[in-house]
Amino acid sequence: MEFLVRVDIGWPADGDQDEFARLLSAERERARVLASEGIIRRMWRVPGQQANWGLWEAPDATALHEALTSLPLFPWLSIEVEPLAAHPTDPERPGGR
Amino acid sequence: MEFLVRVDIGWPADGDQDEFARLLSAERERARVLASEGIIRRMWRVPGQQANWGLWEAPDATALHEALTSLPLFPWLSIEVEPLAAHPTDPERPGGR
Amino acid sequence: MEFLVRVDIGWPADGDQDEFARLLSAERERARVLASEGIIRRMWRVPGQQANWGLWEAPDATALHEALTSLPLFPWLSIEVEPLAAHPTDPERPGGR
Amino acid sequence: MEFLVRVDIGWPADGDQDEFARLLSAERERARVLASEGIIRRMWRVPGQQANWGLWEAPDATALHEALTSLPLFPWLSIEVEPLAAHPTDPERPGGR
Amino acid sequence: MEFLVRVDIGWPADGDQDEFARLLSAERERARVLASEGIIRRMWRVPGQQANWGLWEAPDATALHEALTSLPLFPWLSIEVEPLAAHPTDPERPGGR
Amino acid sequence: MEFLVRVDIGWPADGDQDEFARLLSAERERARVLASEGIIRRMWRVPGQQANWGLWEAPDATALHEALTSLPLFPWLSIEVEPLAAHPTDPERPGGR
Amino acid sequence: MEFLVRVDIGWPADGDQDEFARLLSAERERARVLASEGIIRRMWRVPGQQANWGLWEAPDATALHEALTSLPLFPWLSIEVEPLAAHPTDPERPGGR
Amino acid sequence: MEFLVRVDIGWPADGDQDEFARLLSAERERARVLASEGIIRRMWRVPGQQANWGLWEAPDATALHEALTSLPLFPWLSIEVEPLAAHPTDPERPGGR
Amino acid sequence: MEFLVRVDIGWPADGDQDEFARLLSAERERARVLASEGIIRRMWRVPGQQANWGLWEAPDATALHEALTSLPLFPWLSIEVEPLAAHPTDPERPGGR
Amino acid sequence: MEFLVRVDIGWPADGDQDEFARLLSAERERARVLASEGIIRRMWRVPGQQANWGLWEAPDATALHEALTSLPLFPWLSIEVEPLAAHPTDPERPGGR
Repeated sequence: MEFLVRVDIGWPADGDQDEFARLLSAERERARVLASEGIIRRMWRVPGQQANWGLWEAPDATALHEALTSLPLFPWLSIEVEPLAAHPTDPERPGGR
Repeated sequence: MEFLVRVDIGWPADGDQDEFARLLSAERERARVLASEGIIRRMWRVPGQQANWGLWEAPDATALHEALTSLPLFPWLSIEVEPLAAHPTDPERPGGR
Repeated sequence: MEFLVRVDIGWPADGDQDEFARLLSAERERARVLASEGIIRRMWRVPGQQANWGLWEAPDATALHEALTSLPLFPWLSIEVEPLAAHPTDPERPGGR
Repeated sequence: MEFLVRVDIGWPADGDQDEFARLLSAERERARVLASEGIIRRMWRVPGQQANWGLWEAPDATALHEALTSLPLFPWLSIEVEPLAAHPTDPERPGGR
Repeated sequence: MEFLVRVDIGWPADGDQDEFARLLSAERERARVLASEGIIRRMWRVPGQQANWGLWEAPDATALHEALTSLPLFPWLSIEVEPLAAHPTDPERPGGR
Repeated sequence: MEFLVRVDIGWPADGDQDEFARLLSAERERARVLASEGIIRRMWRVPGQQANWGLWEAPDATALHEALTSLPLFPWLSIEVEPLAAHPTDPERPGGR
Repeated sequence: MEFLVRVDIGWPADGDQDEFARLLSAERERARVLASEGIIRRMWRVPGQQANWGLWEAPDATALHEALTSLPLFPWLSIEVEPLAAHPTDPERPGGR
Repeated sequence: MEFLVRVDIGWPADGDQDEFARLLSAERERARVLASEGIIRRMWRVPGQQANWGLWEAPDATALHEALTSLPLFPWLSIEVEPLAAHPTDPERPGGR
Repeated sequence: MEFLVRVDIGWPADGDQDEFARLLSAERERARVLASEGIIRRMWRVPGQQANWGLWEAPDATALHEALTSLPLFPWLSIEVEPLAAHPTDPERPGGR
Repeated sequence: MEFLVRVDIGWPADGDQDEFARLLSAERERARVLASEGIIRRMWRVPGQQANWGLWEAPDATALHEALTSLPLFPWLSIEVEPLAAHPTDPERPGGR
């Protein structure tokens, strides 16, 4: 099942920038692993923001939550999840009604 | 440039259902053409709603608007457009910062 | 997978009350079938409103959408779906983290 | 009387993680007691968030408040309570209108 | 149990004014009965609006919903219900914590 | 003139709990005085929150503000005030239109 | 007591323009009377909207409501009322705290 | 003085399309006159919507309102006006602080 | 040109109260000067809040911004500005349409 | 492609004012460079706020994000980006539909 996931990073502007750089690097490494496992399908930057929209895939919301909490920056993230259903005119995976 | 587009169909519940069926059929035909032209990349149904999330691609917002207004149901649609930037950990098209 | 579903019925106050009664009766009959199939697990009235909160279960959002659109009042319904994950202290189905 | 309760945990990202782990453990122990007393009926994780939806049961809002304030993390919780009425097509406890 | 209830009357401005006067008269008669039964405790006009705040009392949300749906104008009403718990410094019915 | 007043207490979760207990005790003492003066008429706990709904009475908004700022916790309070008008079906003080 | 009042006129765009002109003329005549009685103190147009901000004065919310409902366009008006308290640096009527 | 103006056209989807085309043509003619007078400085389409953002210039809000109400579609427009002040790094008209 | 200005003071509850008293005193002195210059016309306290509504007058938004930033508490203020146009039934300065 | 960009500066009121002055100076220098490169086209102050509206131009959202993140105050900025399409009655660059 696919999910549309919006992630906003809430690292404080006056927080430790070295720690942030270290966590961000670990975050991207973890994201690459999730991508290689087919869990992260697409990811886009929200222009002007430390935020992203992502297309995630997981068997259900429990598995998705496990993947999201595996992100090193998770305690600083505000995350909104939208469940997605198949659409008959989707070019890649048409279905549903 | 990719755009995340949310479309809600506002056909009135007590509207003419035959006319709606005719327009919906034309809508899906038009969507197939837009998909074949690489303008509609993905489309998902919002569960429980006559609405969808779509991943659209167009040179700029002017071209995107032209594509959206070509939809036969356009006068009944509420549309929100989010511009998308490249993200370094996007599995398909990594880039940006 | 369980979903928390909020349904608001938008039948117009000056609409045909006989037609509404007929559709509402069909709606309840359909809801009983969905309950017997294990798709509707619980349903509560929102006090003071023609609305309900429901606990629905379906393999994924596509199947849930199919169940929701099978409701006879669907064109008059405003529906919001929240995906639910397992929680370690859920008395019935503990899990997740 | 049943209540739909949404709980968001506001522990700061840069707070003491040992203290949080200690309080979270006490929280879950308390939740198990409330479940055994029939006050917490169901609990679900909101995917991507340190938050949950719960189905609680108590004689009235005063008793519910007493149960909620007994949670060790209460000072860090943002809680929204929705009163629930019986619905005629609820599979478990049908009633009302 | 007490509830704070906000009611907005949505009779259309260009609706039949005689019918509205007839229903409003029936509404007030019904409200008087509910007051005599101890269900409506207080009622205030929201200044500038066809709306009111009310203090209602009922054993639970199911009984409250039954009272609210007994109002002749119910199909035209938008209603929000807030459950109320006892407060230790309430001059009339102190309690809770 | 009566006012519906919503008060949310914003004492920080990691604030000094002894100081909070001291201020809360002074707050309740002050509330009892305001009740004895007929300024606080009713007060209810919002279930699950460090917040209350109150029915206050004062000659005008200036006098109400003076009463509210006399609360020891005032600097930590978020307060919303709704002016109330008389309603013809109020059981206690019917009036208005 | 002074009140800040926001009024939005909801006459439908495709409504009878002669009837609207007639009601608007009566509205302005009524407003002049309310001004002469010292109830309407100031009135401003919200630029771009069929709406106004007004400074009204009345003994209490009940009297204000009576003045507002005396407007011929009242059934088409959306009205929000903000109670105002005296401010120590008000050039005209300093007071309060 | 410059103003940022957002205009949403609310012509009903099932309204008379010939009348809409006639009014839209008159609207654009009027907009050209306002542009030639230096009142409309820039105008952009909101992608996916029958709406625009405009940069307008007028001596004050009263003159701006007069210009906006001169638009033939004014009764169908929802308009939001934001006053703009000079900014020291504006490339065209630097000023202010 | 007149502006309706809403100001909320965001001094932290646990901030230095002596410094706040000093700044508030300077703020009121500055407000008196602005009033004497005809820039602040009226000012009202929002009951229950460290906030005010003000009627300000300035040649344009740039001059208004200069006046607002001259307030000693400016860094702690949240300010919303509404431009006001003349209204034909304003008792003091009728005009516009 | 043009973008309408709203920027709110979130420097804390009790933050280091020298550091803020230094960063603000660097911000304005960087803005001048972006203006000279044709990326910042216009910029306006939001009256009463440490915020601005800007008209930015960039090939796409990825390039815009790069420009925005080059601002020295970026970690303290809240930024909202609206994509703009051509409008047939734009006096400067007419186009689109």
